[in-house]
Amino acid sequence: MKAEILSVGTELLLGTILDTNANYIAQQLPPLGIDLYYISAIGDNRQRLADAFRRGLERSDLVIVTGGLGPTEDDLTREAISDVFGEPLEVRPELEAQLREFFARRRGRPMPERNVKQATTIRSGTYLPNPIGTAPGWWVERDGGARTIVAMPGVPHEMRKMWEEQVVPRLARKVGAGAIVSRTLKLIGIGESHAEEALGELVRSTNPTLATYAKSDGIHLRITAKAETAEAATRLIDAFEPAVQERVEPWFYGYEADSLPAVVGGLLRRHGLSLAVAESATGGRLADLITEAAGASDYFLGGSVVYSREAKARLGVPSGVLDAHGTIALETTRALASAARAYFRADAAIATTGVAGPGAAGEIPEGTLYVAVDVEGALHEQATRYSTTRTEFKRRGALDGLYLLWRELRSR
Amino acid sequence: MKAEILSVGTELLLGTILDTNANYIAQQLPPLGIDLYYISAIGDNRQRLADAFRRGLERSDLVIVTGGLGPTEDDLTREAISDVFGEPLEVRPELEAQLREFFARRRGRPMPERNVKQATTIRSGTYLPNPIGTAPGWWVERDGGARTIVAMPGVPHEMRKMWEEQVVPRLARKVGAGAIVSRTLKLIGIGESHAEEALGELVRSTNPTLATYAKSDGIHLRITAKAETAEAATRLIDAFEPAVQERVEPWFYGYEADSLPAVVGGLLRRHGLSLAVAESATGGRLADLITEAAGASDYFLGGSVVYSREAKARLGVPSGVLDAHGTIALETTRALASAARAYFRADAAIATTGVAGPGAAGEIPEGTLYVAVDVEGALHEQATRYSTTRTEFKRRGALDGLYLLWRELRSR
Repeated sequence: MKAEILSVGTELLLGTILDTNANYIAQQLPPLGIDLYYISAIGDNRQRLADAFRRGLERSDLVIVTGGLGPTEDDLTREAISDVFGEPLEVRPELEAQLREFFARRRGRPMPERNVKQATTIRSGTYLPNPIGTAPGWWVERDGGARTIVAMPGVPHEMRKMWEEQVVPRLARKVGAGAIVSRTLKLIGIGESHAEEALGELVRSTNPTLATYAKSDGIHLRITAKAETAEAATRLIDAFEPAVQERVEPWFYGYEADSLPAVVGGLLRRHGLSLAVAESATGGRLADLITEAAGASDYFLGGSVVYSREAKARLGVPSGVLDAHGTIALETTRALASAARAYFRADAAIATTGVAGPGAAGEIPEGTLYVAVDVEGALHEQATRYSTTRTEFKRRGALDGLYLLWRELRSR
Repeated sequence: MKAEILSVGTELLLGTILDTNANYIAQQLPPLGIDLYYISAIGDNRQRLADAFRRGLERSDLVIVTGGLGPTEDDLTREAISDVFGEPLEVRPELEAQLREFFARRRGRPMPERNVKQATTIRSGTYLPNPIGTAPGWWVERDGGARTIVAMPGVPHEMRKMWEEQVVPRLARKVGAGAIVSRTLKLIGIGESHAEEALGELVRSTNPTLATYAKSDGIHLRITAKAETAEAATRLIDAFEPAVQERVEPWFYGYEADSLPAVVGGLLRRHGLSLAVAESATGGRLADLITEAAGASDYFLGGSVVYSREAKARLGVPSGVLDAHGTIALETTRALASAARAYFRADAAIATTGVAGPGAAGEIPEGTLYVAVDVEGALHEQATRYSTTRTEFKRRGALDGLYLLWRELRSR
C-alpha cells in the first residue's frame, strides 16, 4: 500500500513549528507494511489543499492528513475534502451532542456555535471521535476502499491518541494484517551497531520483525508482529522476546513507558537506598536527569556541582587525593563519589569529572569523562572519551552516571 | 515570488530524521519577501524526484532542494534535474580540482573516484562551492531567470553556510532587494504579547520590518532591512534599533550570538563576582544551564541540589526559618540563596524552591516556583506559578533564576 502524508498549517510554512507529526507517522508505517512515498506541508488555503488531495488520490492508496480541523475560518481540511468529492458538509447530530457534552464537562461552558463545524462530515465519510479535544477525525473511502483519506487533528497528543486507538486498528484490517502489535525494549550502555551484532540473525526475522533505533535514552529495539487478532500478535511477541532478551540482557532496562531515571528510582526504592550526586563534568545535568522522575524526592537527597577545587575539598575529597591526582582523574572521581555519599548521608552516590571543553584542561584532552559510583562502599568507575559538543558531552556523562548505578543496582 | 522546498532522502520518509532544514529555510524566506507555498519530502527515487521538479517548475518561481547531492548511487538530485532539462551531467574541471584538493587537505587522502560525480553540473547550471564539505550546490535558471532551482547539501551546517553566504545574496538580487540584512535582539523576563504591546506601532514598520518570536531562551526580535547594498541595509537597521531598544530596554540581554548563560557569565566576569546556586525546584537544571557557557568554571564555584530538608539545613538554612516557613516558601528561598553564598564562599547565589509536580505538596499547589538571588548581601526574589509539565517547569525555573541575577547585575 502506497501512502502519503499531508501536514496542513501556515505555521509550518513560516517555520514557526517543526512537523513532528509527519515524523511520528512516518515511523509508524513500516511495521504496518505501508510504504510512505511523500510528505507535504501545505498552508491553510482551500484551493491548494483540494489540489493536494486530488493529487494524493491519484498517486497514493492512502492519504493521511493532520491539521486544519479546528473551528475557525482558517481550518479548511474538511472544506477541501468536501470540494474534492463534491459532497456538502452535514452536521452529525450524535457528534454534535458529543461536542456539546465535551464543552460542558471539560471546559465548563457552552460550546461556541462556530464549533458546530467540527461536528460535520461529508455523507460518505465517517468520523473518528476525539476524546481529549474538540477536533474529531475523518475516515473517507473511495473505489470500494482502494483509496482512503484519514484526517486527524494537528495537536500532537490528540493526533497520537487517535492514531494508536482508532487509525492503526483500521489500517491493520485494511492491509489484511488483522492486527499489528509492537513492543519496545530499551537498552543502555551499548551502541547501535554493537546491539545489532549481539542480536545476530534475529534482525532478519520476518514475523515478528525486529528493528533498532538510537535514541537519546539508549538503544530502542522494536519487535512488531502481525496476526489475525491482537492477542495472537501479542503471543507471537511473547514467544520471540526471550531470544532477544537472552542476547541483550546485560543492557536491557525497560519497556516503552520506562524512563531510565524512573527505572533507577524504582531500583533504589526496592532496595531501600537513598542517592546523592557530586558533579564536575556534567555541571548539574545528572541531578537534572535524576529529578526528571516524578517522586524523585523520595530517594534523591541532593547533589553538589563542584566546579572548583575548593568546592570538591569542602564536600570532603581528601586534599591528599587532590594533590596526588588533580581535580580531574579517575581516583579523584572515586573519592568524590564517596565524599558525596558521606556529605549527604546517602546510601549511594554518583560522581563525574572531566573536560567538557571547548579546549583541553592542561594535559587532559577535551571530551575526557570519568564517572564513579559508590553504593554502600562498593566502588565502580568508568573512563571514556567523547568527541562531541559541550551540551552533548554533559548529556552523555549524565546518562553514563545513571547507567553505572543501574548496572550495580540490578545485580543486587 | 512563490517558492517551494523539496527535501530529499528516504530517511525522512522512514522518520529516521526530522526535517530541520526545511524549517530553517522556511524561517529565512519571509524577510526576503519570498512566499513559501509547499514543503515536500521525497525519497531517493530518480523518477519521483524528476516529477517533483517538473511540478515545482510549473507552480513555483523558486524550487529550493536540499539533500541527494552525495557521491553514492542513492544520491539522485543531480540526475533528476538533468532528466527534467534533458541535459547531461558534465564534469567541471575547476570544481573537480577543488574537490581533489579538499580531500587532500581536509581528509588527508586522495578523492575516491566516485566523488567525481560531485564535480558535475548540467551545462546551463552553475555550482555553489561548499568550503566545508564535499557536496557543492547547484544554481539553475530557466525562462530568463523567471524559474530557479537551488540545490544545497542535506547536512544541516553545510546547508546553512551555503544558504547564508551564497544563496541569500543571490536571492536578494533576484527579488530586487539588492541586499537584505537581519539583526536579532533577545529579551528575557517578558512574554511575547507583552513585548508586542511595548513595541507598539514599530511592528507595523515596513523597512526595516520587525517580527517577534517566542524561543526557549526568551523573546527574539528580528529587525530586517532591504537596501541597495548590505551597508545601506545595515544603516537602516542602525537607525531603527534605538527606537526598539528604548521600548524593550528592561528586558534586552543580547544579540543573535549571545546566550543568556554567557551574557550573565560576562557580567559576573566584568564585576569580578563569583557565583553559586542552591536548587530544590529546578533539581540541577539551573547549574546545568549556567555550565552551558564555555569557561563557566572561571566564575561558577558550584551548586547544591537540596531536595531534602536535611540537605537544606546542612547547606546552612537556619532551622528556625525551616520551622517557621517550611521547605517551600519565599522566605526559605531567600535564606537558601544566602546559605549557598556562604557555603560556597561566593559573591552571588541563586536559589529555587517550588513544586514541580505532578501533584501538589501539601497545601502548596503544583507549579509554584520561588526564586531568590543574593548578590553581596542584596536580596531579590520572585514568586510565580506555572501550569506546565515537570520538565518545562524546571526549564522555566532555571531561566527565571538566571533572569533575576541578570537584572540585578546589569543595574550595577
